[in-house]
Amino acid sequence: MNRDYDVIIVGGGGAGMSAAIEAHDAGASVALIEADVRLGGSTALSGGVYYAAGTSVQRAKGIEDDTSDAMFEYYMTLNQYRVEPSLARTLSDNAAPGLEWLIGTGVEFTPGSLYSSGVESVARGHAATGNGAAIAEALDQEVRRRNIDVALKTRVQQLQTNRDNGSVTGVTVGDTVIQSGAVVLTTGGFGANPDFIARYYPEAAAHGDWVWYIGNSNCIGDGLVLGEQAGAEIVAHNRGLLLTTPNFRKELEVYVPGWIVYVNREGSRFVNELAEYAVMSGCVNAQTGGSCFAIFDETTRLEAKPDPLYADLFASGMVSPNWVSDVLEEQAKAGKIIVADTLQQLAQKAGIRPGALQTTVDEYNADCDSGTDTRFFKTASVMKPVRTPPFYAAEIRPAIVCLTSTGVRIDTKAQAIDGQGLVIEGLFAAGETAGGVLGERYIGGGNSIANAIVFGRIAGENAANQARRSAPTNT
Amino acid sequence: MNRDYDVIIVGGGGAGMSAAIEAHDAGASVALIEADVRLGGSTALSGGVYYAAGTSVQRAKGIEDDTSDAMFEYYMTLNQYRVEPSLARTLSDNAAPGLEWLIGTGVEFTPGSLYSSGVESVARGHAATGNGAAIAEALDQEVRRRNIDVALKTRVQQLQTNRDNGSVTGVTVGDTVIQSGAVVLTTGGFGANPDFIARYYPEAAAHGDWVWYIGNSNCIGDGLVLGEQAGAEIVAHNRGLLLTTPNFRKELEVYVPGWIVYVNREGSRFVNELAEYAVMSGCVNAQTGGSCFAIFDETTRLEAKPDPLYADLFASGMVSPNWVSDVLEEQAKAGKIIVADTLQQLAQKAGIRPGALQTTVDEYNADCDSGTDTRFFKTASVMKPVRTPPFYAAEIRPAIVCLTSTGVRIDTKAQAIDGQGLVIEGLFAAGETAGGVLGERYIGGGNSIANAIVFGRIAGENAANQARRSAPTNT
Repeated sequence: MNRDYDVIIVGGGGAGMSAAIEAHDAGASVALIEADVRLGGSTALSGGVYYAAGTSVQRAKGIEDDTSDAMFEYYMTLNQYRVEPSLARTLSDNAAPGLEWLIGTGVEFTPGSLYSSGVESVARGHAATGNGAAIAEALDQEVRRRNIDVALKTRVQQLQTNRDNGSVTGVTVGDTVIQSGAVVLTTGGFGANPDFIARYYPEAAAHGDWVWYIGNSNCIGDGLVLGEQAGAEIVAHNRGLLLTTPNFRKELEVYVPGWIVYVNREGSRFVNELAEYAVMSGCVNAQTGGSCFAIFDETTRLEAKPDPLYADLFASGMVSPNWVSDVLEEQAKAGKIIVADTLQQLAQKAGIRPGALQTTVDEYNADCDSGTDTRFFKTASVMKPVRTPPFYAAEIRPAIVCLTSTGVRIDTKAQAIDGQGLVIEGLFAAGETAGGVLGERYIGGGNSIANAIVFGRIAGENAANQARRSAPTNT
Repeated sequence: MNRDYDVIIVGGGGAGMSAAIEAHDAGASVALIEADVRLGGSTALSGGVYYAAGTSVQRAKGIEDDTSDAMFEYYMTLNQYRVEPSLARTLSDNAAPGLEWLIGTGVEFTPGSLYSSGVESVARGHAATGNGAAIAEALDQEVRRRNIDVALKTRVQQLQTNRDNGSVTGVTVGDTVIQSGAVVLTTGGFGANPDFIARYYPEAAAHGDWVWYIGNSNCIGDGLVLGEQAGAEIVAHNRGLLLTTPNFRKELEVYVPGWIVYVNREGSRFVNELAEYAVMSGCVNAQTGGSCFAIFDETTRLEAKPDPLYADLFASGMVSPNWVSDVLEEQAKAGKIIVADTLQQLAQKAGIRPGALQTTVDEYNADCDSGTDTRFFKTASVMKPVRTPPFYAAEIRPAIVCLTSTGVRIDTKAQAIDGQGLVIEGLFAAGETAGGVLGERYIGGGNSIANAIVFGRIAGENAANQARRSAPTNT
């Protein structure tokens, strides 16, 4: 059986390019197959934040004592231990080396762009200069610099498997069979596939036609389909990262202005409205109806203008696309924001407990006056009272699918695992295609990019080793 | 309207006694009404662990840098921000002062008994010498030392309220009305009331006739009933602390021996079997069917003997009541443990994926041999391989109700809050009776006792102040 390549990488985003580079550098001949017209995947569209502990960038900022142990403890704690520790440990231990490796490819992470991107007090969110596009570009150049065959606008239809032992021996593209010693699945998530959202991510699907996906439109779950063909188990159901939206337009907004007051149907606030998106969607989904309302008054609406403080992390150049005076007026006219002359009427229209809404607003206004958010500790300087009619209520749902993390079960070597818990020889998965690395809560901005780079590299290296072991001997 | 007492405390456990003492010391005349034949409640039955950060005991052990800020961050993180921050903050800030206060009453907390009782790396679990009984005894003596009227074997039937403004003005005991300036509800949880478990704690009720309660048998939710009479909102549904059990007998076991292997119905391990009980039940409940199986073999069964390492924390003097050779034999004969000559048969009888169970056991045995738990990082020295037939599988459910934390909504002053978000004048709640202080995950051993003491004290002091403000003027 002739082998066309030692390693075939299916999907050329952050994970796939990392895998290709490492497989090549481990001595393998490598093909990288990408459905899109260019490499980059969702990584190129992302904010380019990378989560890691114990990095040179942290030290340059004076953070000398952070460790992968501390990152692991935080990872397990935020996920209430409902995440595979060996994978969380592997990610925690390899995140810093992965960042240094990215820096070696020319990506710039400055101490000034390091911030606390989750709900931990230590800064571990490393924002790349030039966002995810810069990471993708650097990896793309590393790929080009090497003898790696890249096929764009190409989709893999199925995996080739050995009928005797089930091992993976290549891929089929159109009518062509390409043989290899190992295959790495790095096709990203399945956010662009509504059927898969319904099947694997009911917490997202529950938001119906509000749901949309910010990742690469080619991310329809090819890797999960291919993995299942080879018997891989799909794990970590109903996991991913959702961002909240008022559903005005399909526009991403990672943070909302501080003057927004989130109120649930019981009429209570339930979260600091500026809490990190890592935990926000879980908080909103836990409310009655899985949504809440953003409350504000006419004075605030009139003053609402684009604020660079809330610029999106995805380099679109847009700031606060939703919470701007004229947009709010337009959306109110379109019926997407409830308007009423009294809080009582607003509550009735929205289905909020009226008396409780009044109490909540009274408390909030008093907190605005006193300069302290007594219940949720929001930065008081950005709060504005809700006093002047008309009053507004915009429903908020965690309906933007930022990424999905249900996927092919892997072990710490990124080897795909079948339903019997056995390694599928020759098959690897990494990044969003792999399930179980990300937990039920996102640990913070950069969780996903770190996952892509770390497990992409691991998959590439191990796939090369696997291909070497299984190589036809020259007899 | 004559006032019989400034403050009436309903329920004389840890929270109630703390409230009585503080109300008295703030100048109030106090009655303490207890349903049981003695004071102490569930606190007296508990392990007597108290969770706090920044204490003199920590400093005596060389832990100089722990703070209430760090405790608060951990509290919010483990609860994924789905807990009221003002209450978590109040508990975090007042836990250390509360511990010093307990020490002042004569309770001993030694540096040697300080341990990491949750999933945090810093030791914050302060175990009282003499367990919860010693805490209850010390508080009881403080009560006796003061001019506090104590009524035992007495149950409050209803609250007296002012028809005009809804404020609480006293209680009814039998046919007797007792007037007061304020009432504090500290009746504990509702673990002894199956109807309330079904209504408020479905995650527990789902385990059917396996469910039993380790707290005081008087804890049938009186405080919730009384609170609702006065219009208080009941919040934090479906929260409490469940402990796992094999349902052999009604015997508590906080930790299991290290040789137990937990396997879910997919045939996989999913947690370090020695993980803290703070997170264990959440992990087991998340598995298919809400339960798992404890797997072991004949060699291990024969060697299983009472091990003081796993002595229960509740001072019963018993060690490892369940996982002992003859008990296991007896339970296997009684049909409560599945027995089979092969793992294949064991899996079929238990409804576990057979091939996956074999793989899991093979991996586990290899880890035993190599001395490293590669996936869950359990202490390898306590692991034992699963090799010698017959093989055993005991179903494990998180069915022991340790405490309940659904209850009367309170604010940071322990004032009861109604469905409109308004303070109910004259009504306070603390400890297990209050909802919303404890989150969806127990932060670790001592979360509940700290809650009882901290909010008991706050309730007592504020009730005394309230009673003073509303006192009839001597005209």
